[in-house]
Amino acid sequence: MRILLYRGDGVIEPWARDFAAALPHAETVVWRENMSLASQPPCDYAVVWAPTPQLLDQLAHVKAIFLMGAGVDALLKFGDALPHVPIVRLGDAGMAEQMAEYVAYATLRYFRRFDDYEQQARQGIWNPLETRRRKADFTVGVLGLGKLGMPVLRTLRQLGFPVRGWSRSPKDVPGVPCFAGMDELGDFLSGTQVLVCMLPLTPETTNLLDRAHLSQLPEGAYVINVARGALLAEPDLLALIRAGHIAGATLDVFRNEPLPAPHPFWNEPRITITPHISALTLREEAVRQIAAKIGKLERGEAIDDIVDRARGY
Amino acid sequence: MRILLYRGDGVIEPWARDFAAALPHAETVVWRENMSLASQPPCDYAVVWAPTPQLLDQLAHVKAIFLMGAGVDALLKFGDALPHVPIVRLGDAGMAEQMAEYVAYATLRYFRRFDDYEQQARQGIWNPLETRRRKADFTVGVLGLGKLGMPVLRTLRQLGFPVRGWSRSPKDVPGVPCFAGMDELGDFLSGTQVLVCMLPLTPETTNLLDRAHLSQLPEGAYVINVARGALLAEPDLLALIRAGHIAGATLDVFRNEPLPAPHPFWNEPRITITPHISALTLREEAVRQIAAKIGKLERGEAIDDIVDRARGY
Repeated sequence: MRILLYRGDGVIEPWARDFAAALPHAETVVWRENMSLASQPPCDYAVVWAPTPQLLDQLAHVKAIFLMGAGVDALLKFGDALPHVPIVRLGDAGMAEQMAEYVAYATLRYFRRFDDYEQQARQGIWNPLETRRRKADFTVGVLGLGKLGMPVLRTLRQLGFPVRGWSRSPKDVPGVPCFAGMDELGDFLSGTQVLVCMLPLTPETTNLLDRAHLSQLPEGAYVINVARGALLAEPDLLALIRAGHIAGATLDVFRNEPLPAPHPFWNEPRITITPHISALTLREEAVRQIAAKIGKLERGEAIDDIVDRARGY
Repeated sequence: MRILLYRGDGVIEPWARDFAAALPHAETVVWRENMSLASQPPCDYAVVWAPTPQLLDQLAHVKAIFLMGAGVDALLKFGDALPHVPIVRLGDAGMAEQMAEYVAYATLRYFRRFDDYEQQARQGIWNPLETRRRKADFTVGVLGLGKLGMPVLRTLRQLGFPVRGWSRSPKDVPGVPCFAGMDELGDFLSGTQVLVCMLPLTPETTNLLDRAHLSQLPEGAYVINVARGALLAEPDLLALIRAGHIAGATLDVFRNEPLPAPHPFWNEPRITITPHISALTLREEAVRQIAAKIGKLERGEAIDDIVDRARGY
């Protein structure tokens, strides 16, 4: 069995080493840009991240393509150019817990005004801000109720925040008001003080957080985006922050990453920027998971996390 | 019944209004510096915060002194000059939950390196810090296992951090390694990655966090102080941070508050300063609690939260 490995960021050696250890009977083939594998036997599986168009030519004969991440938009964007084989996303490899930590941190920071205290401290200002916010008035609304969104809801509830959720198709989460579909998005947003975006990026969700939708949040609301930059219309968010309608945003993802040097987000103090670190792929766990799935496919067993191409995730 | 009210910060009117509403049959007497009450009938109870020596003269005949806060050091420092009547601290009036939020925020911030990302973002730097820290290596140690310390332990455990506790006298908390007394302080500190100080300030605990004890923390440890500034030897902490032994500190309390303008903490980026806001007294809840205790005393019933003067809290 031959397994093709490719990462757009070039950091492939530790993965190759771990796959070789996890699948001792397989041959791992590290593909690099402009490399032709024509003279070699075809690969049985591909494990990729941030693929390039050139890579697609190498994937015609594989039995399945595994992704080293949870988001599949970077592969699905190739559409019909993709071979008709199962595409398998990474299940939760420690990412849900990390995202819950990220969102809990950002929510507590806004709720307790630590963002304001940071600003004050940098200017040497000692000024207790009297207003004690009530958690009952600080509803956290999560867009996307999948494997990553659910643990976020759970963690925020444990911390005492009221929560609500929105998803494309109706979900039932005990004790959590759930909204579904575009028809109910307005109702969801109008009662959300902290909007957490955890949606997959699809043609339907691109620019979902635009001026029209963000304006439906109550005045003084906050936005947290840990999904994909293209879900958010960046100029619209900036305008609403400058107009005072949105009080602040914590963003881990952007249209263009790294966020370009001249981008206006860098100079807006009400926008907190992190460099796409909300959920790091834990390599050991990811390799263990993909190796187990390859084993199942080889034995003719069913596996989870196969991407629905029509749905887009 | 007459109730004397005094606050060192002068913000007494809303308290007087709430006490008048909670105890409609009582007469509330707002005392101010240099005011003599000699010509008036004696007060039955006093409700005070940040008292001055002058105030003590007014307290000779009261049946009990209630504090509008959890810390009693500002009153006990008067020692034998205090009348021999019960001194009653505020029980948990929403403070434990707030402290747990504060400590959860500060711990998550260090664990996920949000402090580093803040610094980078201010300089326009996009730099994912590769190292994924493991929670198993990020033990949070709580000094003080009273009404405020216990909820902090609970919240940090829910977030998945290993926790341990230290207290003056032995405590038994299911599932939490507990250490007690000076003999076990070193063992406690040596296994603590994030030290959370929630101790009452007494002669024994003053300067407890000095160079000798802070040095027993592992290299790269963090310090969070939400108790009293005098528990910490400020120059010792600064020296250990500059030497790289302590990675950072989040401090809500200081020897002198407001923290003076020329204090070196303001210019140390590894020290995060908040202006004594980790747990605001929720006035409504505090008034309700004190009014209920006055009612019990009037009916001859026992009350909780009476201060042990010998112990110091």
